[in-house]
Amino acid sequence: MRELRITPWRIESLDPDDRSFRESIFSQGNGYMGTRGYRPDQRGAHPAWRSTFLAGFYEYVKPGITDLVNHPDFSGIQFRLNGTDSESHTVSDFLQTLDLRCGLVTWAYNLTDRAGNQTRVKQEKFLSMADRHLAAIRVSLTPVNWSGTLELSGGIDARVENLPVSDDQLTENVEFVKMWSDVRTEPRPAGGQLTAQTRISHRQIAQSYLFSGKGSLKTEAADEWVTTTINARLSQGMTWVGEKRIAVASFRDGDAGEIVKEKSEELKDTTFDELLTESALAWEKIWKQADVQLIGNDEWQGAIRYNIFQLIQAMPYGDTHASIGARGLTHGRYKGCYFWDTEIFMLPFFAYTQPNAAKSLLQYRCHTLPDAVESAKRFSAKGARFSWMASDTGFEQCGTWDTGCCEIHITADIAHAVRQYVELTGDEAFLRDCGTELLLQTARYWVDRFNYVSAEDQYHLLFVKGPDEYCGVTCDDFYTVSMARDHLEQAAAAIKWMEKTYPEDWTVLAEKTGFQPEETEKWMDIAAKVVLRRRGELWKQDATFDLLEPLDIQAHKDDDAPLYHKIGFDRLQRYQVLKQPAVLMYMALCPEKFSKVEVEAAWNYYEPKTLHDSTLSFGIHALVAARLGYEEKAVHYLEKSLFLDLKNVMKNTAGEGIHTASLGATWQAMVLGFGGLSICNGVLNVENRLPPGIEEMRYRVFHKGIPHRITIRKNQKPEIFVEI
Amino acid sequence: MRELRITPWRIESLDPDDRSFRESIFSQGNGYMGTRGYRPDQRGAHPAWRSTFLAGFYEYVKPGITDLVNHPDFSGIQFRLNGTDSESHTVSDFLQTLDLRCGLVTWAYNLTDRAGNQTRVKQEKFLSMADRHLAAIRVSLTPVNWSGTLELSGGIDARVENLPVSDDQLTENVEFVKMWSDVRTEPRPAGGQLTAQTRISHRQIAQSYLFSGKGSLKTEAADEWVTTTINARLSQGMTWVGEKRIAVASFRDGDAGEIVKEKSEELKDTTFDELLTESALAWEKIWKQADVQLIGNDEWQGAIRYNIFQLIQAMPYGDTHASIGARGLTHGRYKGCYFWDTEIFMLPFFAYTQPNAAKSLLQYRCHTLPDAVESAKRFSAKGARFSWMASDTGFEQCGTWDTGCCEIHITADIAHAVRQYVELTGDEAFLRDCGTELLLQTARYWVDRFNYVSAEDQYHLLFVKGPDEYCGVTCDDFYTVSMARDHLEQAAAAIKWMEKTYPEDWTVLAEKTGFQPEETEKWMDIAAKVVLRRRGELWKQDATFDLLEPLDIQAHKDDDAPLYHKIGFDRLQRYQVLKQPAVLMYMALCPEKFSKVEVEAAWNYYEPKTLHDSTLSFGIHALVAARLGYEEKAVHYLEKSLFLDLKNVMKNTAGEGIHTASLGATWQAMVLGFGGLSICNGVLNVENRLPPGIEEMRYRVFHKGIPHRITIRKNQKPEIFVEI
Repeated sequence: MRELRITPWRIESLDPDDRSFRESIFSQGNGYMGTRGYRPDQRGAHPAWRSTFLAGFYEYVKPGITDLVNHPDFSGIQFRLNGTDSESHTVSDFLQTLDLRCGLVTWAYNLTDRAGNQTRVKQEKFLSMADRHLAAIRVSLTPVNWSGTLELSGGIDARVENLPVSDDQLTENVEFVKMWSDVRTEPRPAGGQLTAQTRISHRQIAQSYLFSGKGSLKTEAADEWVTTTINARLSQGMTWVGEKRIAVASFRDGDAGEIVKEKSEELKDTTFDELLTESALAWEKIWKQADVQLIGNDEWQGAIRYNIFQLIQAMPYGDTHASIGARGLTHGRYKGCYFWDTEIFMLPFFAYTQPNAAKSLLQYRCHTLPDAVESAKRFSAKGARFSWMASDTGFEQCGTWDTGCCEIHITADIAHAVRQYVELTGDEAFLRDCGTELLLQTARYWVDRFNYVSAEDQYHLLFVKGPDEYCGVTCDDFYTVSMARDHLEQAAAAIKWMEKTYPEDWTVLAEKTGFQPEETEKWMDIAAKVVLRRRGELWKQDATFDLLEPLDIQAHKDDDAPLYHKIGFDRLQRYQVLKQPAVLMYMALCPEKFSKVEVEAAWNYYEPKTLHDSTLSFGIHALVAARLGYEEKAVHYLEKSLFLDLKNVMKNTAGEGIHTASLGATWQAMVLGFGGLSICNGVLNVENRLPPGIEEMRYRVFHKGIPHRITIRKNQKPEIFVEI
Repeated sequence: MRELRITPWRIESLDPDDRSFRESIFSQGNGYMGTRGYRPDQRGAHPAWRSTFLAGFYEYVKPGITDLVNHPDFSGIQFRLNGTDSESHTVSDFLQTLDLRCGLVTWAYNLTDRAGNQTRVKQEKFLSMADRHLAAIRVSLTPVNWSGTLELSGGIDARVENLPVSDDQLTENVEFVKMWSDVRTEPRPAGGQLTAQTRISHRQIAQSYLFSGKGSLKTEAADEWVTTTINARLSQGMTWVGEKRIAVASFRDGDAGEIVKEKSEELKDTTFDELLTESALAWEKIWKQADVQLIGNDEWQGAIRYNIFQLIQAMPYGDTHASIGARGLTHGRYKGCYFWDTEIFMLPFFAYTQPNAAKSLLQYRCHTLPDAVESAKRFSAKGARFSWMASDTGFEQCGTWDTGCCEIHITADIAHAVRQYVELTGDEAFLRDCGTELLLQTARYWVDRFNYVSAEDQYHLLFVKGPDEYCGVTCDDFYTVSMARDHLEQAAAAIKWMEKTYPEDWTVLAEKTGFQPEETEKWMDIAAKVVLRRRGELWKQDATFDLLEPLDIQAHKDDDAPLYHKIGFDRLQRYQVLKQPAVLMYMALCPEKFSKVEVEAAWNYYEPKTLHDSTLSFGIHALVAARLGYEEKAVHYLEKSLFLDLKNVMKNTAGEGIHTASLGATWQAMVLGFGGLSICNGVLNVENRLPPGIEEMRYRVFHKGIPHRITIRKNQKPEIFVEI
């Protein structure tokens, strides 16, 4: 595998092989839909590998178990040059480019057939950021040393399948599921339309496409596909250009068939270039808020933009009933589900740069509150309990007991994100309209989850797995207990605030939720009496960490691939090693609560024991190290996170897609770490912590609705411009 | 539901409804095969409900996941009386009888059709205990007030399916799996033969049947079934009798088709009555050793015999590659798998009354040792680790983390059974030939499983679930730690013994296993430094029990149905309640290690907190209570265990089949509890602990190969006759 070329606004691959890796890296999305970065004309080994996902579009594969649905493939284009299939030609001078500025992916290469006929090929593709229902592909073909026939065809193919990839790290699923039924195809003069329904819930999808290009066009349709074929004559040295413009809609938008029909009409009067220009303008607007400029290291510059770019591609802008999965729309891993990854790792990027997007992500959680209430009931608890793995309605999708039942910090993580969002934006309307209800209901869950031990007058948190998933199932996990305590205090504060500020709304909410005033007293009693352990300045991770067996990490781990491939989870949990930060994780989220000595003690104790077997680990370590002034460590960890997928650090980018939490952690490490940004007591503050080699960093953030432009130059006091 | 009538040698039902319950209760088996107790002419709601199992015959339903295979149905018989289907007639005067002495089940009833024609029907069925491949059914029909035609048909039907019912207590599977392919049918003059192979592993089954009865016979065959039809004339007041004699063999016996063909020839020259007589003789021999006679309470007498009877039916005599599943051959629950239920609950019955059967059960474990070694490797441990749920090869079939990974006492339980068997029988050849290897390999597992904490110079057992499955996942579980300690000591002792007694065999074994002398030192070091907690005379269950929340049991549990149907497992584990005994369980197994004060302290503390949500609970409580002289409690718990299925105590006998562990626990409570039997320092001892209402108890046991006949009469010194 040749390394990618990373320049400030471009990611390039010169390697025509290693397809799966490139398909992940060059994944495209506009938040509404996403496709893996396969070359339009390259067929997949199996219909499940070429995937097209729509945000929030899930379907049941078993009772209670959903999968992110693989949609009919609208990207396919095949062509025969002088009668021979392009896939049988030899590829040379291959260059695949991603333009981060506008999301355009280009494949440029030469094809040579057995007779020595050479053809210069360019394929371009983008999903529109201006109209999320649209996508376009353009094929340019130049016969270098021949003239002859072209037969190019493409359409929509519903013969796709799903391969539900679950949460189990060790079991590989091999059962494919056909999701579509009731497929209807409608051939049209230069294109066609396909509608279909999912098998169980009858969820509708509609897609249409339109071809343009010199030649004679013919459309055929069968039960599960519709295809248009262009026959044309190619002349040596002349470039033939064809376009395929696509429209997509689903039941989530309304009447999908009608929407797509209308869009098809619009597509007639436009071109690839016009659509691209509109999309690029939309990207430009987002980049204006989201960009981080780094002067002094072009590879870092390109990489931080790639991280941000993928976050933007994954964000379902304007859709408050969807969130961002652990692999975005780039892979079916984890069945496309939403984890704490969204609120803790990605949401800060949006909260600082695009507060409306952050709000939308939290509104998704508010919309799934009814399911969280149901979930709490199933766990025989009051209130609401968010699922470790959530899909459309929020119902628990995690099947393993140790995570699904025990990794309960997700509920406090979401509460934390609510607080962070409201503090950053000052959006009290959100807190009034749904935030307080969420905090109230979820706070109730902890009352049943903590165990009061009267002999000690303390509340223990039993049988819990913290963020360090190698901790076993333990008690009084520092991260979970701290987060739950903050959650309880925050919920009590929100109720007090609402009672005072919006007494009428509060009366309605109190009635709706059956709130009793003594509830907050109980919450504060728990918050005051949780069990957190320390030895001197060192906060202990949990009740069992001291009992674990030391492991010589160097002797066992020789690269960044997760050690659980070599040593079973069951054994790893009894070694004194961390999969990812736990105590340091909490310190990363709430730095104001700890003295420097405490953070240093935690770093010195836990960092050498951390395996970074989760992609959630590097960025957080970079952030904490940058804040501590541990420059070398900070750079080391930042580079792991910055290039996590670009350099295939975990060796699973090909097989699992883009790690969206790491994207967010990278942004946090860059901006909150090296970029020195913090909010303390409601005041925005910036420190100069630029790492070596970086001359200047620029970024924009919102605070309380006001845009701030920050410039940090080497050895200078940071500049904060308030842009009003 | 009308209660069953229980007399000393018979179980009777007068209730023609409540089919599923009767199908469980009247399940028939001969250790080789088992069928649920459905009436031959009554069709099931679904092909998976009418089940026919062969011991040790499993097949894959998914990679790595097996199910006990539902075999082609050989029991079916349909008849039309004067042209109308018997299933459309009204049933009256129904009596179903199980003769415990010989395993014969009889259904006797009247049928009345719409025209008022009455027919007296008797159906009889047994599986032969003399030749395990044979079964027979007899139908007797007497027209009371009519004469006319009979059309009776029956054969073998391979249109059966499996419904793999897993270990998850809360999820119901609804996915049926067809297991059979390559079905071949061969019609013969008065019967037919069917062979088939399982779909994945091509495991062969062959069945044949032969009809006899007055009338004209005709056999038809189709792809998946073969059926013989008898047309006869019935005359008022005259009884028509027909017989169906069946032979079954599988790949596990050799060439199944050939075996069955030979058996078919034999079946020609015999009759139902002759086969029954032979089978009854075989039963008589077993009863001679296994019977427990109780004078003074006929219902108890019938019930204890029913418990013993079902144990015998489930025992795969002579088959060292099969064991007894948690529901025997009476239901597909737990995919027919083997648990600690066999070694800890059932094996004592066999070890005392039929030592060869006990040996066979242990040999099954020896045969699966290679898989246990593989399993340990998958858990990154040395040695051998037995699976919580095992099927044919021993591979782990339990899919839940908290049980499959954490309920590790099974390995020590099997070691305990080896010791008990050898102590009881003096069978040193077993210890030499395979027992020591088993002990050695499994002892090694504990070395990796315990965590040495150097600061304490102690070994902790982390992240473990004890027998009380409501304990969460905890540390230093008293039962598991004690059993593992005993296991380590026992393994060291076995090696010492073998080295001294069979030095040549030992040299071979030491070489084969790569044994190093320092290994036993390590074992003894662990055994000496495990962590067991106590407060005064009270042994503590585990590290977290004291932190659990008290529960008002009376307020939540109003019958014997498990509370986990009302309160989720996740919540239950944080209440200070036990599902089943844990500290008391160990005390039940090793009474000699505790003072009476200690047992009383454990009883007084744990018994009121125990929910008995496992059928493994009642019998053990009865045993401990009997030993403590808590007569009322002992009787209370014995009756729960004794009538567990007969009175549907847990309300799941219909849906799950016969609870085999409870059968064994009942025997232990009766013989080791009320029957006062113990072996102490190699000496057999009997105390008189007869409960009120029992005038006399008689049973036979083997000790060191010598049969002992014990008689205990009220207020008299027990009599022990050595029968040489």
